[in-house]
Amino acid sequence: MYRTKNCGELRIEDVNQEVVLSGWVQRKRDKGGMIWIDLRDRYGLTQLVFEEGKDDDAIIKKLDNIGREFVLKIVGIVIERFSKNPDLPTGDIEIRVKELHILSKSATPPFTIEDNTDGGEDLRMKYRYLDIRRKPVRDKLVLRHKMAQAVRRFLDTQDFIEVETPYLIKSTPEGARDFIVPSRMHTGTFYALPQSPQTFKQLLMVGGIDKYFQIVKCFRDEDLRADRQPEFTQIDCEMSFVTQDEVLTQFEGLVQYLFKEVKGINVNTPFVRMPYTEAMERYGNDKPDLRFGMEIKNISQAAQGKGFQVFDSVEYIGGICANNCAEYTRKQIDELIEFVKRPQIGAKGLVYVKYNSDGSFKSSVDKFFDKDTFNQWAEIIEAKPGDLMLILAGDKNKTLTQLSELRIEMGNRLDLRKPNEFKPLWVTDFPLLEWDDETQRFYAMHHPFTSPKPEDITLMESNPANVRANAYDMVINGVEVGGGSIRIFDTDLQQRMFNLLGFTEDEAKAQFGFLMDAFTYGAPPHGGIAFGFDRLCALFGGTESIRDYIAFPKNNTGRDVMIDAPATVSVEQLKELSLSIYKQTE
Amino acid sequence: MYRTKNCGELRIEDVNQEVVLSGWVQRKRDKGGMIWIDLRDRYGLTQLVFEEGKDDDAIIKKLDNIGREFVLKIVGIVIERFSKNPDLPTGDIEIRVKELHILSKSATPPFTIEDNTDGGEDLRMKYRYLDIRRKPVRDKLVLRHKMAQAVRRFLDTQDFIEVETPYLIKSTPEGARDFIVPSRMHTGTFYALPQSPQTFKQLLMVGGIDKYFQIVKCFRDEDLRADRQPEFTQIDCEMSFVTQDEVLTQFEGLVQYLFKEVKGINVNTPFVRMPYTEAMERYGNDKPDLRFGMEIKNISQAAQGKGFQVFDSVEYIGGICANNCAEYTRKQIDELIEFVKRPQIGAKGLVYVKYNSDGSFKSSVDKFFDKDTFNQWAEIIEAKPGDLMLILAGDKNKTLTQLSELRIEMGNRLDLRKPNEFKPLWVTDFPLLEWDDETQRFYAMHHPFTSPKPEDITLMESNPANVRANAYDMVINGVEVGGGSIRIFDTDLQQRMFNLLGFTEDEAKAQFGFLMDAFTYGAPPHGGIAFGFDRLCALFGGTESIRDYIAFPKNNTGRDVMIDAPATVSVEQLKELSLSIYKQTE
Repeated sequence: MYRTKNCGELRIEDVNQEVVLSGWVQRKRDKGGMIWIDLRDRYGLTQLVFEEGKDDDAIIKKLDNIGREFVLKIVGIVIERFSKNPDLPTGDIEIRVKELHILSKSATPPFTIEDNTDGGEDLRMKYRYLDIRRKPVRDKLVLRHKMAQAVRRFLDTQDFIEVETPYLIKSTPEGARDFIVPSRMHTGTFYALPQSPQTFKQLLMVGGIDKYFQIVKCFRDEDLRADRQPEFTQIDCEMSFVTQDEVLTQFEGLVQYLFKEVKGINVNTPFVRMPYTEAMERYGNDKPDLRFGMEIKNISQAAQGKGFQVFDSVEYIGGICANNCAEYTRKQIDELIEFVKRPQIGAKGLVYVKYNSDGSFKSSVDKFFDKDTFNQWAEIIEAKPGDLMLILAGDKNKTLTQLSELRIEMGNRLDLRKPNEFKPLWVTDFPLLEWDDETQRFYAMHHPFTSPKPEDITLMESNPANVRANAYDMVINGVEVGGGSIRIFDTDLQQRMFNLLGFTEDEAKAQFGFLMDAFTYGAPPHGGIAFGFDRLCALFGGTESIRDYIAFPKNNTGRDVMIDAPATVSVEQLKELSLSIYKQTE
Repeated sequence: MYRTKNCGELRIEDVNQEVVLSGWVQRKRDKGGMIWIDLRDRYGLTQLVFEEGKDDDAIIKKLDNIGREFVLKIVGIVIERFSKNPDLPTGDIEIRVKELHILSKSATPPFTIEDNTDGGEDLRMKYRYLDIRRKPVRDKLVLRHKMAQAVRRFLDTQDFIEVETPYLIKSTPEGARDFIVPSRMHTGTFYALPQSPQTFKQLLMVGGIDKYFQIVKCFRDEDLRADRQPEFTQIDCEMSFVTQDEVLTQFEGLVQYLFKEVKGINVNTPFVRMPYTEAMERYGNDKPDLRFGMEIKNISQAAQGKGFQVFDSVEYIGGICANNCAEYTRKQIDELIEFVKRPQIGAKGLVYVKYNSDGSFKSSVDKFFDKDTFNQWAEIIEAKPGDLMLILAGDKNKTLTQLSELRIEMGNRLDLRKPNEFKPLWVTDFPLLEWDDETQRFYAMHHPFTSPKPEDITLMESNPANVRANAYDMVINGVEVGGGSIRIFDTDLQQRMFNLLGFTEDEAKAQFGFLMDAFTYGAPPHGGIAFGFDRLCALFGGTESIRDYIAFPKNNTGRDVMIDAPATVSVEQLKELSLSIYKQTE
């Protein structure tokens, strides 16, 4: 037996007990005659104590060769500590060791295995198995486990069935790139790894499994951005015989449950519901952070026609109110101007109006506007004396996006984005289609199976850009954690959608024929949602990077630097697949 | 709102309630003036009733166009049935319909959607989404969901953490063939899909996650046999600081819990533990079905040297006892002889000895043996008057295997393999290595990380075939449901194992270098197990085919005939991967 207790559970009540512990050497301290070792396992740290002269010489001698990260098994007696450590759950006791076995030696680890490590990210990725020994990393994996368990527990009690859908499926050209898998039994053909189980969950609905879910890996062969992974995990859900409102209620219930179970936090339902156009007008963003107000206000009418050429020549003028910032210094204002002028934001400039505590105004455009006008702006922007108004002007959509960025920046500066406050909402009524200038065609904003709002169906051919979809995103603190839609379940309507997307009938048949076929045998109305599980974990964990919540993540170029994959394969393997690699000529 | 109740929940207490139901038309009956429709959803069937003259004409008229598998939404009043159906949970009531909406039409389905369908397997695979509407199919998916939930619930309470390991990993030549995935970002290189998360779970152990599990898809590109799938699901588990006995106790606890939770059956722990050699001697099989005795007995000593040339010239003579079969007819005996002579079994012949109720013997070898000898055999084989002894002779291992087949056949004939009886056991102490005649080398019987028994380590180089492993299989009713081992956690021992398997140091480094590296930083003793989840579900469900328990299975050639995959991909896709397909010359 390697242990009777773990390294995190012994307390003062256990004094005089004989215990067996196993774990890693966190550190060893030698104070002339007295030697201490902190022994670590998943559950905590326990201090071992050795005394020269008093303890067995053979044991004391062994200690010389023991270094950090050695794996030990010890037998000993729990004793009360002379100087207790109130910061450690086991800090009242230590172990007087009677037997000591070195189970494994360790080379010096490439970085220190402490809460705060000296290892850089690349090094820690390469030695991920050592990084996982660190409590902050392990805690994130435990959080993920708890989240997954809670998701399943909740959905199970709500009569959802978890169904495993296949990983070896068929490539579809719509959307992102597929990873493909050559078939050996049918050379020249390929499986594809799923970007999501979308069509399979819809087939399950046709099959009468009216409440489906799955926590499932999905794959996208995209050029990776900072926080994307080629494989990622979704909580994938679908329901039949439901309206949009019933779907929203069901899944805000899930998220409410998660907050309660995993973080002990109460969030109220129903969540705020906000149409896409409203979110864009009020926050310049389809995933607004509602932890703070600072809404964007349109002052175009009150700002134009007063002789300020810059304003008079633009489509839109909007502003936000930074509370209690009227005292901002020149330097602070300049920082904000620099911020909005960064190429990623792209504003030409920034107009500020300080609404001083004495009721006067101080602005970069003093000479164009009088006090009455500033008062009018203040009323619209809801600024009070002591506040600072920040104003951008230009093309409407671009300006709203810039104001959104500025709003988030001010939220950060003013500490309004509290890490332990959670403000979820549903953004609804997304546009059905997005126009792509490059390819000169419409793309499905969500996916080709999303249904248009019934009242907008007549616009599909005449004014496609204005058709709203039965689509919704769940947004928490400015993060899109999930999205879904009510699906098309009528073959004719689906065909019209494919037409809009520029699929010929043959193409649609080749790609989605099985789904269209399925719909001819009695498809129920259905809809669903998928949550980005990695992102949801990061949100709950309170950090930004999803990579921290993945046990073995890939780097920005899609490499697993620990196992060194992808890698070459043998000539025989390729021959069996009838494949050859050719050098591309540029 | 599409429904206020489902089609399986209304009872006599609900009479007079107004309800909204949605579902599929299971059948429609018209008895001149009275029309009934059975409406079906996942939860059951509810009868709708319509009466010409009494009900709204418009509704009655709509009924003409409604056929099987149409999707309806109705509003109606629950009424008591005149003639009740005690076989149906909702059989006391029916619905008088006030509103009827056709949500979807249906073409005539290609097979009847009833518990007993007229559809052949190929057709049902192609229209799997319709097959899933059938209760027996749906019930299997629900069983699988319940099993998965129970596994997670149990392991969670035991402090196991579910960790997702990556799907895009690296190809390893040992074992079965990998599916490979070409990388676009690193052309000319490939990921591989995991055959199991073996190395990752071992790395998690090095990382201090001392109790890991995962319900996870695995992939093998093998030539498929009847009941194999290219993608299959494992319950994958690993523990640190454990002895073999602790692992067995932990996971027999899991299986005991599953039987209780999912089937309401008590199975006793500890399970029988039986060394491999004992299983082979007693049952001729490393996965014995313990629901019945009929053990194989070695009668070589008692049967040789009596002048029967066939017996005298062989290595081994063994027999089994079929209770109460002394009255078998010539025809029945001939069937058994034919059975053992089938090429799959390969015996040259079968000797029978009838131990008649009067104490006399009748045998095919009467002229070579006297009554005393037969009595001696009967004693060894544990036959009583009225029993039939069945005897095979030849090379020991082959004969044991043949006797095992014969034993199973007799178990089936005598109805000794009760579908609702479950007899689990652990088979332990497997050989570490298997010799392969074709390639003239040893292969790991389990996998290269399985540890030899400490007392056999000295034999590794001198007598490798006789080294026993710390490896174990869980067997239930003759089915291997899981297997695992205590792993090697010492780099030197691992190197010796690689040597035995004929890996050069460079090959070992290239394939498993990251694991060997990891072991140099303090590896804990660890071991684990993996259960074949599809097979475990089939065992619990009481049917043979694992395919029934997979929502969207592939056929014998690895094709998904529903979505028609694998399929060709576009020239552009291949070009991005720098791949070309060549015609193989034979």
